[in-house]
Amino acid sequence: MERKEFRDLASPAAAREAIDSLSLEGGIDRVSLEDARGRVLVARLDAELDVPGFDRASLDGYALRARDTFGADEADPARLEIVGEVHAGEKPDIELEEGQAAEISTGAVMPDGADAMVPVERTDMDETDDGGANDVLVRTSVAPGDNVMFAGADVAAGERALGLGTRITPRDIGLLSALGIDEVPVRGRPTVGIVSTGDELVRPGGDLESERGEIYDVNSYTIAAGVEDAGGEAVLYPHAGDEQDEMERVLREAADDCDLVLSSGSTSASAVDVIYRVIEEQGELLLHGVSVKPGKPMLVGRLQGSAYIGLPGYPVSAMMVFRTFVAPAIRAAAGLPEPKAATISGRMARQERYGEGRLRLMPVGVVQNADDDPLVYPVDKGSGATTSLAEADGVVEVGPETDYLEAGEPVTVQLFSPDVRPPTLLGVGEDDPTLNRLLDGLENPRYLSVGSRPGLRRLREGVPDVAVVAGPIDRELEADELGGWSREWGLIVRPGNPDGVEELAELVDRDLRFVNRTTDSGLRSSLEAAVDDLAAERDVAPHDLRESIDGFELGLRAHESPARKVIAGDADVGLGLRETADRLDLAFVSVGEQPVRVLVNPDRTGKESVRELEAVLADETRTESER
Amino acid sequence: MERKEFRDLASPAAAREAIDSLSLEGGIDRVSLEDARGRVLVARLDAELDVPGFDRASLDGYALRARDTFGADEADPARLEIVGEVHAGEKPDIELEEGQAAEISTGAVMPDGADAMVPVERTDMDETDDGGANDVLVRTSVAPGDNVMFAGADVAAGERALGLGTRITPRDIGLLSALGIDEVPVRGRPTVGIVSTGDELVRPGGDLESERGEIYDVNSYTIAAGVEDAGGEAVLYPHAGDEQDEMERVLREAADDCDLVLSSGSTSASAVDVIYRVIEEQGELLLHGVSVKPGKPMLVGRLQGSAYIGLPGYPVSAMMVFRTFVAPAIRAAAGLPEPKAATISGRMARQERYGEGRLRLMPVGVVQNADDDPLVYPVDKGSGATTSLAEADGVVEVGPETDYLEAGEPVTVQLFSPDVRPPTLLGVGEDDPTLNRLLDGLENPRYLSVGSRPGLRRLREGVPDVAVVAGPIDRELEADELGGWSREWGLIVRPGNPDGVEELAELVDRDLRFVNRTTDSGLRSSLEAAVDDLAAERDVAPHDLRESIDGFELGLRAHESPARKVIAGDADVGLGLRETADRLDLAFVSVGEQPVRVLVNPDRTGKESVRELEAVLADETRTESER
Repeated sequence: MERKEFRDLASPAAAREAIDSLSLEGGIDRVSLEDARGRVLVARLDAELDVPGFDRASLDGYALRARDTFGADEADPARLEIVGEVHAGEKPDIELEEGQAAEISTGAVMPDGADAMVPVERTDMDETDDGGANDVLVRTSVAPGDNVMFAGADVAAGERALGLGTRITPRDIGLLSALGIDEVPVRGRPTVGIVSTGDELVRPGGDLESERGEIYDVNSYTIAAGVEDAGGEAVLYPHAGDEQDEMERVLREAADDCDLVLSSGSTSASAVDVIYRVIEEQGELLLHGVSVKPGKPMLVGRLQGSAYIGLPGYPVSAMMVFRTFVAPAIRAAAGLPEPKAATISGRMARQERYGEGRLRLMPVGVVQNADDDPLVYPVDKGSGATTSLAEADGVVEVGPETDYLEAGEPVTVQLFSPDVRPPTLLGVGEDDPTLNRLLDGLENPRYLSVGSRPGLRRLREGVPDVAVVAGPIDRELEADELGGWSREWGLIVRPGNPDGVEELAELVDRDLRFVNRTTDSGLRSSLEAAVDDLAAERDVAPHDLRESIDGFELGLRAHESPARKVIAGDADVGLGLRETADRLDLAFVSVGEQPVRVLVNPDRTGKESVRELEAVLADETRTESER
Repeated sequence: MERKEFRDLASPAAAREAIDSLSLEGGIDRVSLEDARGRVLVARLDAELDVPGFDRASLDGYALRARDTFGADEADPARLEIVGEVHAGEKPDIELEEGQAAEISTGAVMPDGADAMVPVERTDMDETDDGGANDVLVRTSVAPGDNVMFAGADVAAGERALGLGTRITPRDIGLLSALGIDEVPVRGRPTVGIVSTGDELVRPGGDLESERGEIYDVNSYTIAAGVEDAGGEAVLYPHAGDEQDEMERVLREAADDCDLVLSSGSTSASAVDVIYRVIEEQGELLLHGVSVKPGKPMLVGRLQGSAYIGLPGYPVSAMMVFRTFVAPAIRAAAGLPEPKAATISGRMARQERYGEGRLRLMPVGVVQNADDDPLVYPVDKGSGATTSLAEADGVVEVGPETDYLEAGEPVTVQLFSPDVRPPTLLGVGEDDPTLNRLLDGLENPRYLSVGSRPGLRRLREGVPDVAVVAGPIDRELEADELGGWSREWGLIVRPGNPDGVEELAELVDRDLRFVNRTTDSGLRSSLEAAVDDLAAERDVAPHDLRESIDGFELGLRAHESPARKVIAGDADVGLGLRETADRLDLAFVSVGEQPVRVLVNPDRTGKESVRELEAVLADETRTESER
């Protein structure tokens, strides 16, 4: 096996420097006002005209000569002859002389001769006989300029309107509109070509052959979304296989079109070498390997005048490297500032050991404790997990010199974005369809279906708000029960029950392929108890009975998994729930009922989301009892 | 003049209630994964398959039977026969027996018979003669399951993947990709039809006839951008004139197409009545007039099953009402949470009086004082100003019971958006082209060109960081000078100087139409000083000389305004700078040089942006001296 070793890892600072030395800028776009929101001006814009462009009445009322009102008040109004009217959008066709006024609308052009206006509220129509309907009584005195907005008072031609580098807000669009500008020069979004490599990748929506080891391509769309979040424009390329020729062709095509090419490496080591070779032979390789975890096998270079960055293939690693090293560079090229207010301070929920001497980018979740302070816990399903980031809120950077973080130690969490809202409720425990329905009634909950036993353990450690526990539990529970329901469990078999399975004992006595659940699950606990009862009945060792069930030791993680093995023809009987059998149109052999209990962290009984869950549980219990 | 009076104003709470009673929801969209970022899920998504879909090698190395390695270590490795290899994306064609291993790539399918794998780093190829090339030495002992990710370990079929109401992040897109989901059901964006009314409105980009009182339509694009910011989809309708029939036609068309119709009222009072009548007669009017400033003439109602809200016509009023009452409703309909971290606490920079007994939405700017604490100052160019919001950072709500805010009083500023970054530098004073160039060299400065005298006054009040002052200044300056430059000023005349103007005295002696600058400007001060000198020379009263200049009293606000009057043919001579004359291709009669000085707030000399300005000024001085 030929392998590339990373003997001289670059420091994270050196990696940043290498990326900074690349040029990702996307040129200049001219965009219409409708598309200008959020874009960044590349030039100062000065006003080319006065706003308003004319002397303008600020209110509805009468345009007049200020000196004609001098000395007027409520008791002794000035009487002026109305000689015409001016509406908004009309050119005045009158010129006022001494003693004259014109009716005028808000926003209308002040007629010649007028130097002030008085609002209609401070006037009366003259109702005396001799005055006639054409006189107005002005009951206040005004000064020249009163209630008039002079041309250029808002913005004057030649004034600096918007500065270079302005990120255009709706309010700036207001200013641009007022100036009549309908197109602005803005920084082009850097175009980022995205190339995933690996023979095993299939685009979402396509058909997957799991037996060939195919998996859906996670990185392409995820990184594309990250690129757009950072202000870039993502271009997805058909993913390249592991062969050097094909990889080179796709990388060249992307480099032709884009300011930056981002590849995420194939999972095979030899493929990483292929990409490395393409860049080294055809372009310029600046850096290979960074002292960071995850993210060691990172590449930085140039290809055909474009910037190139190679991300690791594992989705979690790829995204962590992307947000730490690549997103800031894209934002800088797009002219966007680093998002502010994207960090929170919290305390470690439990001790975390680490001692590899590399900068660690640790994905974490956040939960509010009883005092509303953020508790921080690492999220790590192992390096192959594609989905754990969806269960995380941000990242804690742990320096290479740090061997472990104590429980309670203060840490700074960089949220994935300023929009991130840590969940209102953190639950752990059994996977259950009723629970999933209940969670729909809450706002932004997070539930980790780790199984009943690990859920209980985590609740004892004090991290989650609630744990959901099913089946018989050995130990005395210290936690309060928030509520619960019961579920019917048993054996799931093919539609119509072709093997004619009628009871649990047949698993022992007949030649049936069985699929069990993991020992962490409450279903497995109930099954083991039932097998133990059967052993007692038959007066044999429980171990012997278990051994005689084909597949008893094979434990699947989720509540539907055994049923799906039955559908796939990989098993005759699966452990599961009646609800699952009904939902998947399978037949069901009932074995028993088991309680599902929601236990609450004693510190969190007063938390709003816990009380909401309690209410939702009470509703469920009521509905169930009405059935 | 027929008028609608607002005798019974609704409370702001009642206005919110009326808006909440409207239904703005936009239905359900199905969007592709590429378009899913930021959208809000309308249904829970459960996993329909296991991720990974097979038992998967986590590293490069050898798949084997764990029990074959029991007891192996560095000194005493286990020797296994290599019987094949499995790459990612391949279906294994081997089944391992006791004592056998298969080379395996990261991500490849574990072959039948294997229950663990060992990374290549813990193995050696056997180099002894008798073993041959087909044996591997395993220098560690592994347990069943080691370095294998079992099918469904990441997500198992049937598990809850993403909850109802999830706002989709790039990480969620990762999870959806892993599950092969390429389309998701999301909340439709509420469509918002935007109708501006007023005969005087012209769309930006169109030709403006200022003499007819035409102005550019500010509200349409501004409110559209606000709608998109809030998660809605804006549809601009051709603006309606002030006639009832046309208004009705446009409103009906918008109501047909959209979930919400937003009009911004014409500036004429009668037009407001027309809209009011259309809604009252053709739809349902829920509310007319709210006790808030600005924003009193607000309408809430329904038309043809769509929601309708009428905003005031003045752009500042329209936007303040939009952000306070309408944007939250659009966000709610789009399923988006209120943006967090969008408020800052500061102190009033100066006293602000107010006593109208209505809730006041006061636009404010924010500047950091010497201690880096935010100072808050009101931004108000008068109710007709279209552009002042571009100079504001947020809003302070002042309750109806508050008569005045003291200087130093703590206030909460609601930023216009979480992205808003108050300016790094706040400058005030003279309008000057050299200054505009210097500002281009700073990051995010704000400059209010209020003129030299008002600038100096504001600096004394302690609000801005710097004031820019031109020409002779009477009083002793207490502030430090940061730097400065000089500018040549004089008389701007038509190209080729057709009137043959040669010196200032001709303004007095000849029949020339002159245009002056405002008394706030430093140019005006220098001109007055020069006229005074001429009066002394001729031994006449300065006042008499000024009186004899046609247009001496007409003062325009910005440095280019007089020159533009010359271009327009409204004047023969304008006060201005050589730089302006050159830029606008006009002729120039030099009168003198005047200093422009940048004065600094004594408290802010250490502020980073002030030091940056100092550096930029030093560069300018150097460049100037090199000319």
